[in-house]
Formats: sequence, structure tokens, C-alpha cells
Amino acid sequence: MRLLASGRGDAEYRRIRAARAYLSGVAEPPAPALAGFVAEAGPCRAAEAVRRGKVPPGVAKEVEARADHVSGERLLAAADEAGVRIVVPEDDEWPVAVFAGLADARSVELPGMAEPLALWVRGSAATRDVLGTGVAVVGARAASGYGEHVAAEFGHGLTRAGFAVVSGAAYGVDGAAHRGALAAGGATAAFLACGADIDYPAGHARLLRVITEQGLVVSEYPPGTPPRKHRFLVRNRLIAASGRATVVVEAGARSGATNTANSADALGKPVLAVPGPVTSQNSVGCHELVRSGRAVLATRVEDVLELLNPLVGAVPCGPSVPERRTDDLSPAAQRVHDALRGADGAAAEEVARDCGLPLREVRALLPELELAGLAVRTERGWSVSP
Amino acid sequence: MRLLASGRGDAEYRRIRAARAYLSGVAEPPAPALAGFVAEAGPCRAAEAVRRGKVPPGVAKEVEARADHVSGERLLAAADEAGVRIVVPEDDEWPVAVFAGLADARSVELPGMAEPLALWVRGSAATRDVLGTGVAVVGARAASGYGEHVAAEFGHGLTRAGFAVVSGAAYGVDGAAHRGALAAGGATAAFLACGADIDYPAGHARLLRVITEQGLVVSEYPPGTPPRKHRFLVRNRLIAASGRATVVVEAGARSGATNTANSADALGKPVLAVPGPVTSQNSVGCHELVRSGRAVLATRVEDVLELLNPLVGAVPCGPSVPERRTDDLSPAAQRVHDALRGADGAAAEEVARDCGLPLREVRALLPELELAGLAVRTERGWSVSP
Repeated sequence: MRLLASGRGDAEYRRIRAARAYLSGVAEPPAPALAGFVAEAGPCRAAEAVRRGKVPPGVAKEVEARADHVSGERLLAAADEAGVRIVVPEDDEWPVAVFAGLADARSVELPGMAEPLALWVRGSAATRDVLGTGVAVVGARAASGYGEHVAAEFGHGLTRAGFAVVSGAAYGVDGAAHRGALAAGGATAAFLACGADIDYPAGHARLLRVITEQGLVVSEYPPGTPPRKHRFLVRNRLIAASGRATVVVEAGARSGATNTANSADALGKPVLAVPGPVTSQNSVGCHELVRSGRAVLATRVEDVLELLNPLVGAVPCGPSVPERRTDDLSPAAQRVHDALRGADGAAAEEVARDCGLPLREVRALLPELELAGLAVRTERGWSVSP
Repeated sequence: MRLLASGRGDAEYRRIRAARAYLSGVAEPPAPALAGFVAEAGPCRAAEAVRRGKVPPGVAKEVEARADHVSGERLLAAADEAGVRIVVPEDDEWPVAVFAGLADARSVELPGMAEPLALWVRGSAATRDVLGTGVAVVGARAASGYGEHVAAEFGHGLTRAGFAVVSGAAYGVDGAAHRGALAAGGATAAFLACGADIDYPAGHARLLRVITEQGLVVSEYPPGTPPRKHRFLVRNRLIAASGRATVVVEAGARSGATNTANSADALGKPVLAVPGPVTSQNSVGCHELVRSGRAVLATRVEDVLELLNPLVGAVPCGPSVPERRTDDLSPAAQRVHDALRGADGAAAEEVARDCGLPLREVRALLPELELAGLAVRTERGWSVSP
């Protein structure tokens, strides 16, 4: 399933892959100086320069600790053994549009947003096919039953609408979103904060295997990289970048999901937050996102679809309202009808006094109500029809 | 407690009250033509003109059904017997600022917003004192336990902050808001869609009595007027006008609370809506108000206070975030600390490779972490402090 890079010979492609493997391991992401250097010099010349220590000071600082301890060939071999493949920007399947925004952000003013130098992928789907149609669904690990329910609903609904659900495979909202997508038979991508070969969290080993079969487990960290606290935050920018929109389902006041939302916001991508009970700590982050204007309030999958494509006319957008038989009445006719409700057989004059409308008008409206089946005239006078 | 109108003789004041009583009964509110006529001619001349049938056609239409069937004196006597008093715009206690907005709206483009011609009040508090400090709290009759809890919290908190809670005395949110205010020992006002002498809903007879003792039960309908469906919507404009802001706590897709919110919005007053579970039909209206931009999302009383007085600096506005010992660390120090978490005694070189920071920097940061009590050095190397 690996796609050969267009117009490149096999040997050159192998060199590029080894160089990218080395570069992806030699600096801790995000590595804005190294990313800029690679973008300028190309991966092979950049990797060679790093190995020889002939790099600008900013790059040197990023690679110093590992330059002599990483081998691209060894990482590729380890990946092969673990069932992980490398996907590089030179591949046809590289999701160009997804990560171009990160490179732009890095080169302008957000070094922390630097693009990944390669992706390590478990799963045979083409990366671009999955990530190119992504919507991020993220949220609290310690989600409530409500949060997991809503996450699964969004995961399912977005998948049915043709989007791939991108998340972080964590317990709680992430897992529920992936499961909702899988249940709908769609593709879903899990970005890990460790090597793609590591089942993290361990309790999601089975979920990660299923994701691999229907979608992708992805990481910018080479195989074997253990999870570290800061890597979760760093990883979040890739989730934000892979989503055309980011939906936050339950997030505490201090949460990784809010961090992902902020990344999406910084990348100019729409953020939606699902509200919940104000008595729940799990929704504090979502409400804060809406109050601060960083997120749009979302209650249904349709809210996301509408935002992604404002021209979607077929989507019923307003809440459905039950119709009442009196809905089509004019305000005056409704007043007459209201007055009848209080009457058990009333003369037109009494009805007029009750509702305060001129007698002539009431006399004209009563037969109309009768015709509509809303009023009856008996020997005792006018009443609402039973 | 009745305040004599400033600068008026006793006899003239009695004439004004009788005229206003007659006018308030002779047309079904809202009566924009009559209100405009009264504003122009004054209540005594206006009442006389109505009695004689010498009024412009618009006014004639509003008063035709009742002109000969209403007596101001009789209404005043009935009110007296029922423990209800009339409050007129000529009284010192008339809440001028509250209803001026309605008159403006009526005269410009919103005839449905016409000001009341008099208020019928149960309770001895001065109307201006209560309504002049009002915040409206409204919502679903068939509220959930969650909705009633939140309404009571807002009622209580707003009262503690010095505001009077204005609502409609209905079951559900309204009642809970009144009760929260009463529990805080504050004033609260209930606007009824029937005469102020009628306990509506009947199940709230006791609540209405307590409201009367601590605050006011108010209506623009003369004593004895029965509740009618359209009167609830018409009444809502008075609740909206009496609130410096309107807080909607639970509202279905089709709800009177949304109607009150729209009135407040039309009067240029801020609207806040409390979110709830997206799975609850009771919150659909609140979420729709926020999504459409008509309401600001509110999760706490402080959100209302902040909106009413953006200068309230003492109010802690962000959600409270638990502090962590590592919060003050620089990003680099946090990375070093993260690397230590995975290590059970590590050399500085290993830490540097793990976190990808230059060795020199790691060597400088480790003793700092030790000093902060976050790292320990043993014979096996560096670890996080237990």
C-alpha cells in the first residue's frame, strides 16, 4: 500500500525515507528550527548536515542531545518489525493540505506549531484519504456517561456524513468518538503521544487494533518513543491540524481538549463545543470556549456540517417544533379562541368583552373558527370544540 | 405605603386613579393606540373621551367591546377588597425607567410592546424599589430537576448580589427562581397573566402569598381578569422590561421563555441562557438562543453580574483551576521533569536524550528541580521526588 514518491527513483526514495526517519527522531517535536532547515535544504542534505554538526545554532540546540544516538535505518527496521510504516512529505499519500497550515504557522509566528518531519503510521489506509477528510472530536478522559454518549453520537454522525473522525485514543471522549466512527463503518485516525507501535493507553489495545483495521494509528514520534506529559500537548496540534473543524465534547477547566481547541483556533479552523449541565465540572471548559467566543455552541452533528458547508440546505437546522392546530390562526382569531376556552357557551358579546376585540370582528371570526373545527355553536352559545 | 403623586391634590389624584383603573380595564393589552392617546391627552381627558366615544378610530377599535361595561370605581373597590392596590405612572413609586422603554418601542415600531396603563399590585413594597433593581429569570414550566436547581441558584445568587428576581410565578423554573430569591431573604416580583388577586397557578397560592410579604405580585390586568393563553405572551414583555437582563434557564424549542428573551432582545436588553445537556429537550431553546447570537451563555450568577457591570473586578470570572506544583516551571524544565517521571535513576545524558534538550541545559535545570523539591539525585541517578 505504500505509494512511491512521484517521479523519484527507488534508491532516492529510500534515501529520503532514511533521512526523514533520522530527522524525525533526532529532535523532540515541535522542532521549528530543524523543520525550517529541512524545508530549505531538503531532507537528505539536512540529515547529513545534522550528522556532521554543520547546522545553524538554532538547529544545533534542537538536535544536540540525540544527533549521535539516532539511526534512521534502525528506526525504519524497528518500525517494520512493529508493523509501522513511515509516511513522508515526498509520498503521494502525504496529506499536503493538512500540514501546510502548520508549516505556515511555524514560519510566521507560532514556532510551537511546527510541522511534523514524518509520520509513523499503523494501518494500511492511505494517510491522505483519512486525514484529508478529518473532523477532530476531542474531550475529557474522565468523561461522564453523558459525555461518552454525545461523543459516540458525533463520531457516528460525522462518519455517516462522510468525514473521518480524528482523535487521540484516550479514555473517555476520545475513545467514544473513535468507537462511534467504527460503529458507523467509517475510517478514523488516532494520533498518539508516543510511538505508533505502543498501545497507549494499555486498556485501549483492542480499540487501537480495530482502528488500525478501519483507519490509522498515527504518530510523529518514532516507534519505541514512550509517552511523556508534554508530548500530549505537542501531539494535539496534529489533531487540530487534521480536523476541518474541532469538536470539544466535555472538557474541564484545565484540559488537553481546550489545548487542542486553541491550536485549531490558532490555525484559523472552526471550533465547536458541546454544552452540558452547568453543575458538571466536565463541561466547564466547553462553556468557557463558547463564552470567550473561541467556539461555536454545537448540540448536533448537523451544527458541525452546517459550519463546514453553509450551503448544506437539506439539513434541518432549527429545532423541530410540534405543530398545533391553532398555529395558523391570526392573533385576533387566537384571542377569540382563547376567550372561548374560558367559556361554557357564550354569546358573541361576552366573547368580545373577554378578549377586548370589536364585536363585529368577533362575529366574523367565530364562524371561521367553527369552519376550522375549533369552535362549536350550541343553543347555550359558543364554546371551543371538544 | 401608597405614595401620593408629587405636587397633586388629593382630589385630582383620586380622579387620576379612577381614570387609570378604567383605562386599564377598557382595552385588552397591549393597547398601543390607547396608550399613545393617554400619553398625549393625559389619563383623565383620555378616559372621558373613551366613555363618550370621541376617540380616533384606532383607539375606538381597542375599546369598543368594553367601553360601556367597565367602571374604574368598581375596579378600585374590587381591588381594595382583594388586597390589591393600583399603581399609576403619576405615583412617585412608578418605576419610570422600567416602562419608558416600552413606550419608546410602542411609539417607534413595536406596537405589541405598548406600556401598561396602570399596574395592579399585591404587596406593600414600593414598586420602583423592587422592579427598579430587577433581573428576570424565566424558563420552562415542565423543568427538570436540573433546571429547578439552577433557577434556584440564580435566584439566590442574584438576590445576594442586590438584585430583585422578576419572573412569572409559573411552575418549574419561575417558581424555583422566586423561591431562591425568597430563601436569600430578598425581594422578588411575580408578573401574572391574570388579575393580581388570582392565585395562578393554584398550586402556587402559598408561594404567591410569601412573595407578597417579601416583594410584589403584579399585573396590568384589573382584579378578576382570568388567565388566557395570549395573556401569558403579552405579560412576558413586562417581565422582560423589568429585568436589567433576562436569564433563561431551560426552555424548550417552543416556549414562553424564548418569547420573553425575544422581548428583552427587542428592548435592547441583554439576554443570557443557561446551557444543559444536549440530550435534554428542556435545553433546546437555551442552546438555540446562544447559537443564534440572541443570548450570551451563562453558567454562573457571576456571568450575569459581569454583564450588568463589566467593571466588577472583584468577581472571580474564569473557572477556578487547581494549581499544580509544576505549574510555575518553564516549558524546558517541565520537559526535563517529564523525562524524569519515566526514569528510575537516570544520568543527565539519558535525560537529555529523552527530552531532546541540550545536555548543558539539562545539567542546569536538574539542580533547579531538586531545589524546588521536584527531583532527587541518588547514587543511581536522577528521579522525580517521591
